[in-house]
Amino acid sequence: METHIDEGLDLVVAYRTLAEHGILDAYGHVSMRSPARPDRFMLSRSLAPELVTIDDIMEFDLDSEPIDGKGRELYSERYIHGELYRSRPDVHAVVHNHSPTIVPFSITPDVKIKPVSAVSSFIGLGVPTFEIRDFQMGSDMRIITNELGRNLAGVVGDKPAALMRGHGAVVVAADIATVVARCIYLELAARQLSQAMQMAGPGGRLITLDDSEVAAVQKRQEFSRPWLLYRTKALARIAAEAAEHQPQGTTTTPKAR
Amino acid sequence: METHIDEGLDLVVAYRTLAEHGILDAYGHVSMRSPARPDRFMLSRSLAPELVTIDDIMEFDLDSEPIDGKGRELYSERYIHGELYRSRPDVHAVVHNHSPTIVPFSITPDVKIKPVSAVSSFIGLGVPTFEIRDFQMGSDMRIITNELGRNLAGVVGDKPAALMRGHGAVVVAADIATVVARCIYLELAARQLSQAMQMAGPGGRLITLDDSEVAAVQKRQEFSRPWLLYRTKALARIAAEAAEHQPQGTTTTPKAR
Amino acid sequence: METHIDEGLDLVVAYRTLAEHGILDAYGHVSMRSPARPDRFMLSRSLAPELVTIDDIMEFDLDSEPIDGKGRELYSERYIHGELYRSRPDVHAVVHNHSPTIVPFSITPDVKIKPVSAVSSFIGLGVPTFEIRDFQMGSDMRIITNELGRNLAGVVGDKPAALMRGHGAVVVAADIATVVARCIYLELAARQLSQAMQMAGPGGRLITLDDSEVAAVQKRQEFSRPWLLYRTKALARIAAEAAEHQPQGTTTTPKAR
Amino acid sequence: METHIDEGLDLVVAYRTLAEHGILDAYGHVSMRSPARPDRFMLSRSLAPELVTIDDIMEFDLDSEPIDGKGRELYSERYIHGELYRSRPDVHAVVHNHSPTIVPFSITPDVKIKPVSAVSSFIGLGVPTFEIRDFQMGSDMRIITNELGRNLAGVVGDKPAALMRGHGAVVVAADIATVVARCIYLELAARQLSQAMQMAGPGGRLITLDDSEVAAVQKRQEFSRPWLLYRTKALARIAAEAAEHQPQGTTTTPKAR
Repeated sequence: METHIDEGLDLVVAYRTLAEHGILDAYGHVSMRSPARPDRFMLSRSLAPELVTIDDIMEFDLDSEPIDGKGRELYSERYIHGELYRSRPDVHAVVHNHSPTIVPFSITPDVKIKPVSAVSSFIGLGVPTFEIRDFQMGSDMRIITNELGRNLAGVVGDKPAALMRGHGAVVVAADIATVVARCIYLELAARQLSQAMQMAGPGGRLITLDDSEVAAVQKRQEFSRPWLLYRTKALARIAAEAAEHQPQGTTTTPKAR
Repeated sequence: METHIDEGLDLVVAYRTLAEHGILDAYGHVSMRSPARPDRFMLSRSLAPELVTIDDIMEFDLDSEPIDGKGRELYSERYIHGELYRSRPDVHAVVHNHSPTIVPFSITPDVKIKPVSAVSSFIGLGVPTFEIRDFQMGSDMRIITNELGRNLAGVVGDKPAALMRGHGAVVVAADIATVVARCIYLELAARQLSQAMQMAGPGGRLITLDDSEVAAVQKRQEFSRPWLLYRTKALARIAAEAAEHQPQGTTTTPKAR
Repeated sequence: METHIDEGLDLVVAYRTLAEHGILDAYGHVSMRSPARPDRFMLSRSLAPELVTIDDIMEFDLDSEPIDGKGRELYSERYIHGELYRSRPDVHAVVHNHSPTIVPFSITPDVKIKPVSAVSSFIGLGVPTFEIRDFQMGSDMRIITNELGRNLAGVVGDKPAALMRGHGAVVVAADIATVVARCIYLELAARQLSQAMQMAGPGGRLITLDDSEVAAVQKRQEFSRPWLLYRTKALARIAAEAAEHQPQGTTTTPKAR
Repeated sequence: METHIDEGLDLVVAYRTLAEHGILDAYGHVSMRSPARPDRFMLSRSLAPELVTIDDIMEFDLDSEPIDGKGRELYSERYIHGELYRSRPDVHAVVHNHSPTIVPFSITPDVKIKPVSAVSSFIGLGVPTFEIRDFQMGSDMRIITNELGRNLAGVVGDKPAALMRGHGAVVVAADIATVVARCIYLELAARQLSQAMQMAGPGGRLITLDDSEVAAVQKRQEFSRPWLLYRTKALARIAAEAAEHQPQGTTTTPKAR
C-alpha cells in the first residue's frame, strides 16, 4: 500500500465519517477503486469502521480475493465491491451499509424513497430494492459469493444505489467524497420523507424534485465542501487517538486538503 | 475586517452555534449587516460552518459581490443575503439553512407551520413558502442570481422567515442573537408540531398561540440568555481548537459577554 | 449562602443534569426550599442552566423577592417557585421547564399523558394542564406575577406536576433527586406514550399502570441510584471547567455522595 | 474475584457499552455465569451502569444471594438473573433493561416485535411478553423475589428474550458479546419496525425475515466484530477515568482482544 498512502487515508476518512454520522455501526464497509490499477480495489480487513486505520487497508482483485491476504480476517460480504467495480467502470467508490432509516424503507415494498431536496437529488436517478429471495430462498441475508454479488450488481444496474431488503443499502459514486455524502443524505432523505408522509397523511400532497430539477442538480453537484469538513474532523480524531498511544512524542496532524 | 473584530466574532459564534445545534450541516450560511456601512454585509468565504473562523469572514456589497475577493471561493447562494438586506432595512442578520425538520414542512403544501410556544411565537407573524418553480422551471434549486434573490425576498416580504420548497429556509432578524435563536426554535417547533399532529390525529384539536399572544410575546422577547450560552460555548470550542494547533504557547479564552 | 454550600451544590447539579438530558435548554430553572428557613428558597440568578455555578445561587422569600439582590438580573418567572413553596409545605424542590416532548402534549387537549412504566408512575397521581387563558387573555405566556403564580399553583393542587399549554411544565417533589428524576422520566414517558399511541393506532389497546400499581410503586420509590450518577457526572464536568480556567493550579474534584 | 479478572472486565465492558448506547440509563443490570462455577453468577453491586468498575463486581448463588455481601447494597431485582441461570443451562449472560423503544412495544399488546434484519434475527426465535398481573395484581412492577423470578423465567422459556409490560426487557445469550449485541439490536429493531409500520400504514405490507432466513442467520451469527469495537471504546473510557483520578502516575490501557 506504500504507493497509495493518500488514497488509503481518504478511505480511512470515509470509514470514520460514516461511523461518526451513524450510517455505519459495527458493520458495513467502504472501498475505493485503486487509482493505479482499475482492476483492483482497496478495502479494510474485517474490522468495525470506527477502528479502521491506514494499516488495515488491503488491496483486492475484482473477484474480491486479496492480493496479499497476510492471514487476516476478511469481510464476508466483500463480493459486493468486486462485482460492482467489474460491472460499473464509472464507479470508483462503493459503500455497503445498514443505514438505520433505510432498513424500514427496504421492508415496505409499497413505499418508495424519493428525492426530497437537492442534496438527495441522486435518488431521482432511481434507487431499486434488491430482494435476495429472488435469487436464493432461505439465505442468511449476506452477499457471500461472487454470484450473489453479480445478482446485486444486476439490480443496481446503472443507478447510484440500491436498497437491500431487511439488510441496508449499497451506494456507488465516481469518487469517495460523493459516495460518503450520498450515504449521509440518503439516510437524511429517508427520515425527512418518512416524516413528510406522516404529516401529509394518506393520499396527502408531497412535492419532491421533478426530473428536470434532478437533472439540473446532478449536472453541477459535487461534494467538496462537506468532504473538507469530514476530512478535517476525521484526521483530527485520528491524530488525537495516536497522541493517546504515544504520550511522550510529539504528534503532527495530517493537513486537511 | 480589522475594524469589526467583535462583530465578526459574533458571526463566527453564529456559524458554530447553528452547526452545534444541527441546524447547519456542511451547508448553509449566516450573515450580518456591517455595523459601519448599512450597504454592506459580512459573510464567510465558502466553507462548512463548523470550520469558519474570524479569518474567513469577508465583506460584500448589496449585489453580493465581495469588496475584496482575495481569489477565494464564495458561496454560490450569497445573493440571498444581499437582496434581503436591500429589501429589508430593518434586517441586520440573515441565515440560510437546510434545517432537518423544515425540509418535510417545505414539501407538504397542505401542512402549515404554527407557533407552538413562546420561543417560536415569531412563526405567528407569518412564514410563507418559496416555490422556486413559480420563477424558474427545471432549476438546480439554488438561489444563484440577484434575480432569484429578489424573487425570494419578494416572498419573504415583511415576514421573519420563509420555507424554501425542497431546500430549507431563510430566517431574518434585527440582530444576530435573534436570528440564531429563531433558527433553533423554528426547527424545534417543526418537530413539536409534527409530533402533536400525529398524536391529535386527523382533525384533532391543537391549541397554538393566538394573535394576541403572538403580539404580546413579540413585544417583549429578546434572546440575550441563550446568546450568552451560545457565545460562551462557541468561544470555548474555538479556544480549544486554537490550543490544539499551538501546543507550546498559552491560550487566552475570549470573554463571553 | 456560606452556610448552605452543600445544598447549593446539589442545586447546581440539578441545573447541569437537566441541561445534559435536554430537559432544560437556555431556559427553565430549578429551586430548592432553604433547609434552615422553610419560608425561603434557593434559585440561580437569571442564567442559562448549563452556565450555573455555586456563585449564581441566591435566596428568595415566598413572594419571590431576593433576600440580597446584589443588582443581579432575576428570572422573570421566579413567581412559579415562591407560590408553589407557599401552597405546598410538602414540596422542597421545584422545576420549571420547556421539556421538548411535553410541549406537544400541552397543546393537544384531547391527549392525556399516562404512566407507562414504574419510573414514570408519579404521572398516575395526576398531571393537570394549566391554560393561561383561563386567567389572562392575550398574555405573553409567562408567569410574571405572584397572582399568576398562585393561579398555576391552584391548578397544580396536590399533584406532582402540571403541563403548561404552549409553554412546558412545572414539576415538584419532596427532594431535589426526585424532582430531577421526575423531569427526566416525564419527558421519556411522553416520547414512549406518543410512540405507543402511533403503533397501536386509533382506538388501539394500550396498557398503562393501574391505580394499585401506581400506589405500590409510589410507596417505595426513591431516586438515589440515578442521583449518584447525575451528581458524579455533573461534579466531574464542573471540575473540568474549573481546571480549564486555572491551568497552573491543582484541582480537587468534589466527592460524589 | 481475583481469579476472574478478565471475565469481570468483560462484564464491566458490557455495563459501559449498554449505557453508552442508551440501552441502560441509571437502571438495569448485566450478569455473567461464573466460568469456574456454573452455579454462580457475577453481577455489580447496586450502582448505575455508567459508574460500574471491576471493584463493584460481586458473585452470587442461584438464589441470587451474595457469596460475600460485604454489607453492600444489592440490586432489588437480582432474582431475574439467578432464576434464569437456574432454568437455562445454555445461558451464560443475562441483561435486564428499560430499553427506551421496548417499553412502547411492551404496552401495546396487539403489536408484535419482529425480525427486521439479520442483526435482529434472534427476534424470530420468539420474544414473548411478561405481564406481571398474571402473577401478582397491584405489584410495584419489580421482580423482587425468587418466585417472581421463576415466573419471569417461565415466560422466557427457551427464547432469547422477553418484553416486560410497562417495564422493559430481559435478554439472554450463551456469551456476553451476544447478549450485549442482542440488546442493542432489539432496541434498533423496535425503532425500525415502528417506523416501517407508520410508513406502510394500517394493513400495509411489511416484509420481515421468514423462518428459513432466521434459521440460516442464527446458524452462523456471532458478534465478535461489534464486541471488539465495544471493548476497545469502553476500556479507553475506563482508562481515561482512571487517569483523571491519578494525574501524577502513568496509566496503562488494558489491551482490547
